[in-house]
Order: sequence, then C-alpha cells, then structure tokens
Amino acid sequence: MNPSTAPATLAWIGDSCGYLELIDQTLLPGELTHLACRDVETVWEAIKSLRVRGAPAIGVAAAYGVCVGVQPALDADEAAFFARLNEVCDYLATSRPTAVNLFWALDRMRTKGLSLRGSLLPREVAAGLLVEAQKIEAEDRLMCRAIGRHGAALLQDGQGVLTHCNAGGLATSDYGTALAVFFAAHEGGKRLHVYADETRPLLQGARLTAWELQQRGIEVTLICDSMAAQVMREGRVSAVVTGADRIAANGDAANKIGTYGVALLAAAHDIPFYVAAPTSTFDMSIADGGQIPIEQRDPREITHGFGRSTAPEGVQVYNPAFDVTPARLIKAIICEHGVIEPVTREAIAAVVQQE
Amino acid sequence: MNPSTAPATLAWIGDSCGYLELIDQTLLPGELTHLACRDVETVWEAIKSLRVRGAPAIGVAAAYGVCVGVQPALDADEAAFFARLNEVCDYLATSRPTAVNLFWALDRMRTKGLSLRGSLLPREVAAGLLVEAQKIEAEDRLMCRAIGRHGAALLQDGQGVLTHCNAGGLATSDYGTALAVFFAAHEGGKRLHVYADETRPLLQGARLTAWELQQRGIEVTLICDSMAAQVMREGRVSAVVTGADRIAANGDAANKIGTYGVALLAAAHDIPFYVAAPTSTFDMSIADGGQIPIEQRDPREITHGFGRSTAPEGVQVYNPAFDVTPARLIKAIICEHGVIEPVTREAIAAVVQQE
Repeated sequence: MNPSTAPATLAWIGDSCGYLELIDQTLLPGELTHLACRDVETVWEAIKSLRVRGAPAIGVAAAYGVCVGVQPALDADEAAFFARLNEVCDYLATSRPTAVNLFWALDRMRTKGLSLRGSLLPREVAAGLLVEAQKIEAEDRLMCRAIGRHGAALLQDGQGVLTHCNAGGLATSDYGTALAVFFAAHEGGKRLHVYADETRPLLQGARLTAWELQQRGIEVTLICDSMAAQVMREGRVSAVVTGADRIAANGDAANKIGTYGVALLAAAHDIPFYVAAPTSTFDMSIADGGQIPIEQRDPREITHGFGRSTAPEGVQVYNPAFDVTPARLIKAIICEHGVIEPVTREAIAAVVQQE
Repeated sequence: MNPSTAPATLAWIGDSCGYLELIDQTLLPGELTHLACRDVETVWEAIKSLRVRGAPAIGVAAAYGVCVGVQPALDADEAAFFARLNEVCDYLATSRPTAVNLFWALDRMRTKGLSLRGSLLPREVAAGLLVEAQKIEAEDRLMCRAIGRHGAALLQDGQGVLTHCNAGGLATSDYGTALAVFFAAHEGGKRLHVYADETRPLLQGARLTAWELQQRGIEVTLICDSMAAQVMREGRVSAVVTGADRIAANGDAANKIGTYGVALLAAAHDIPFYVAAPTSTFDMSIADGGQIPIEQRDPREITHGFGRSTAPEGVQVYNPAFDVTPARLIKAIICEHGVIEPVTREAIAAVVQQE
C-alpha cells in the first residue's frame, strides 16, 4: 500500500441521504473489510466495539453518525427533526466515555444544527450538518499533517522510537497523530526503527500499528507490552510517542491502558515521552486527570480475546481501557499548532485559546 | 482442588526402570493432561516447549530426565554407561539457557554418578541416580514450604499483592516460591487479594497462577501486563512478589520478561518488590546480571500465540524470554534459609555459603 492509495479509515458515500463507510478494524490485519453504516445504531455499535477507534476517528465517525441518524426525520416537522438530532447526539455520546473528541464532535454538530434552526427546512439542515461533518473530517486531515510536521522536528535520523496502541491513520481520518510524527520524519528522510507494543487486550499495536508502519516502509519491530522496559534498558529506543484520548487543563493525558506504565519506564531510563494529539483532545473543563472517567470494558476481552479461553473459568478480571499519564511525565505535547513544552497549565491555555 | 489433592507437577513412576510423568502445562487450565516421558528426548522437548516450566521444576524434571536418559545404557559396560550419562546431561543442558537450576540439578546428578563409579554396576549407579533425583525433589518440596513460611511473615492481613508469571506449585515440585508466600500467608489466616499479570506471550499468569490461586481459595484478579502500573496507582497492591530463574552474586535477578518493568513500576509507587527463590537459583560464578544469558524465543509465540495470527505477515519480532531486575530494585530475597535484606553481595554470600 502506497500512502496515496491507503484505504480510508472512513468515508461518507453520497449526499445527505448517503451513508458512512468504515474499515472494520477488528478484522485487521487479516481482513480489509468495509462496513456500511446506514443507521445510527450501526455507527454506535462500530464505535462501542472498536470497529472504528482512536480519539480523532471516533469524533469524525460520530459526526457522520449524526448525519445518518437524522435521516429518518428528514420529512418530519422542525420540532421533530431537532428532537431527533438531540436524541441521536445523546445516544452516540454513550458509545465510549473517555475520548473527549466524541463529545467535542457531537457538540459541534448540535451547535451547527441549532444555528440553522428557524430559517431552513429539515432537509436543508441535514445538508448543512453533512457539510459540518465533512469540515470536521477535512480539519482532521490537516491537523494530522501539522502534528506530523511539528513532531518530526523532534526526532533524529537513525533513532529508535517506541509507541503504544495505535495513533495512526486508522485512529484518525488519515495519517494519524503519534504515527504521523514517524511518517513525517520518514518522509523527511530520517530513518527510524519503531518498536510497537502489541497493546493487550485488543492488540491494536500488533494488528494496526505494525501493519501501518509496514505498509509505509518504516522499520518496525513488534514486542509484547511487558518487553518495553527491556527494550529501553538495551538502548534500543530514545523517544516514546503516543496519542491521547483526553487531556486535562493541566496536561494530564488519558490514553490506552499501559501508556502510564510506559511513561514511568521512559522516565526511569531518561527517555523523553511525547504525546501527539489535536487540540480537540483537550478538555479544559477539567482541572486534572483525576476527573477523567476511565472506561471499564468486558472481562472477556482479556479471558477470551483470541477466540478461545486463556484463563480459568470464573476468574475475576479488572479491565480498565485507559490510564492517565500525569503531566510531569510528559516532555511535550505535539498538537497541530506546534509543540507545547514544558507541559504547563499556562502553555496549554495559550495554545487552546488561540482556536 | 484441595491443596492435599492438588495434581503433582511431576512424579517419578516405578523403579529406576520407570519414567517421569508431568502435567502438560501448555494445556492448562483448559485440560489437565499428564505426559509420560519414557525417553530423554521427550523430557528435553517438555522443558524446551514449557510443558514443564519454572526454574525449580525444570531442575527436578532434568534430574529425572537423567534417570530416563541412562536407561538405554543399563546393560552397557561402565565406560559406555558414563559416556551416556555425560551425553544425557549435556543434552538436557541445551533445553533452556537461563534457569540456573537446570545446570545445578544436572551437575548434582553427574557428580552423584561419578561418586558411584568404580564400585557399582551401571544398574546400581542408575538406582543411585534415581535416589539423588528423588532427593532433589524432596528438598524442593521442603524448600518451598520454608520460603512460604519466611515470606508470609512479610505480608499483612487484608493486603493487596501482585505477581508476574507463575512461581507456584506448577513451577516447583509443589507449593511454589512466590505463590508459596501467598499460600502460607493465607493458611496463616491472612486474607490477601492477589493481582496476577497475565504474562504475555505465554500467559502463565492467566493460565497457571490465576488457576492455582483459585484452586486454593485465594482471591485473585487477572490483569493484562500493561495494567500493573494503574493497579499500583490506584493503591490496590502494596507488595510485589515474583520468582527468579537465576540470581547473580550481587543480587541481580533474571526472571520472566516483564519482571524488570514491574520492579521499576513498584519503585515508582514506593511498593516493596520481593523475589522468592531457593538458593539453587543463585549463580555465584557470575558477578552481576549483565552476564546472565537471555533466552530468545520463537517470534510465533507473539504473533500466533492464540491459535491465530494477531500481527501482519512478515513483521519483525523481538521476543526475549527473560529480563534482569537489578538488585537495587529488590527489597529482599526470600529463600529457604530466611529473608536476605538488604540485598547485598555480602548478605547473599553469607546465606549461600551456609549450604
């Protein structure tokens, strides 16, 4: 796969009566299958089941989910149409609790809809909503390129780097956040060797990150999560870059479970730990990471993750999907506007307020 | 399963013409199947493939492997018998490179055989070798009980603890090393809540540790390796206990990959990290952990560990089976003679020399 022919993470097909098509990421890398989402329930299930995942991609999928969701009310009266719009937004917001980009995108869609209320017919509002969703997607693409550009400047030719989970093209409309940094460095002629944590329980690192890097011709070595410390100790990596699902006003960053541990290990080996995320990931309404809700997921992801049982019947399981890396462990946050370093409340506020 | 009816990790069946029977641990917890080892190749394969694993159990299995291995030479002349004994010991030593108990047990068997040379017939030497192997097994059982007793004194009622991999009854003849500490504390009336790292790639924590604790009625929660930091941060555990496969003269300890990371995470949360291991695990011939050979294993353990591929075709994999935890991160080493604390070259030498 050449970057220019990379299959799109998601795409809107048709006009405002069209539908959302997305890669079913649960089947990767074995199968590249597209799922057509023609009703909001299918979008909700796709987000819930991680068929589409990654904070920015969830935001874009939810925006298009609103476009799908209002279709049954296109011929209703205005009150019924807006009731439906609200209902659809509320419903999609229940799909995943941690990624703030979900709520951010739904808020944008709801606000856009309300801005058109009174002067337009429901079908015209729906067309306006589709334009807004497409704008969110287009901005997402530009954001990823900008993150890549800013982040690439932090890396050197010949460097070993490590990432956790997948913050790649599959986690966004295209190109990614953490992986965008590697892609841009690679395109700029810097040779990197990326160590990809497999990222239990759902193996996004093994299934998605290793695959994306391989497709782009970047050297990648897959490791188990438990091997990151050893890889650091052996001097194989000299920077860590991950994505984020929600960043508090002070810089505490929620990301895939295991990220906090990787950040501690990086600190113990004097390796800089970077977070790459768009400003839509910041939740300025919360002061610190202690207030970020942590999604708890099905124990069977751990005990039956691979089609057969890997644990004794009836065992108790703890399966938090995220953890919070405190700002003090983050050397810099790479966003579309530049590099926030050091990570302080003031520096974050200055960048987010320029929006 | 009641402790008294726990299936034996391994057992010798019959006289010196008998055979070694062991639980095929690769099939646990789904199937409890015994494997009869009637030739040394089967013993070698069982150790290599982790059908029997855990440093002390490998030592006992290798000792019995010698008894199986010399059987074809029982009617040979003395020179041929001892040539066979040497050959069998050398061969078994190639099964796993890191666990020093393997070499320790083989040395004991070889030394025992040589001590009987000249005065006895090969069949009589073989009978003497069986007695030696049975002695190694019996000592192992006593050693585990002693480790449990010494370690239990370090834990409090109501405490949360964490362990990595399996250093339980299945890793020894019976009762374990790290898990012996939990078993003895539990038998002494202390209620514990154990968090078991699943321990990728081969899931000994999920498959074996969770199972053993469940069987003994100890509260256990299974987590992915990447969740240990979060569990510590939430205050769920206040001690970590693991086993070891080889300990250098200065206290640096090799154990299952991921242990070093867990030790760093424990240090970051001010949680004491203990190693439980018999003195046969000490390798006083090496000054520090830098000289411990680290076994590299088949990439397919990571990419095809669950019966189907979980990574893209052709991806590079790094799969070290062990890492080394430096002595400075180990609060104490619990051995059959007591608790070595602090972990210094002198304290270790004092304990090992009392052998």
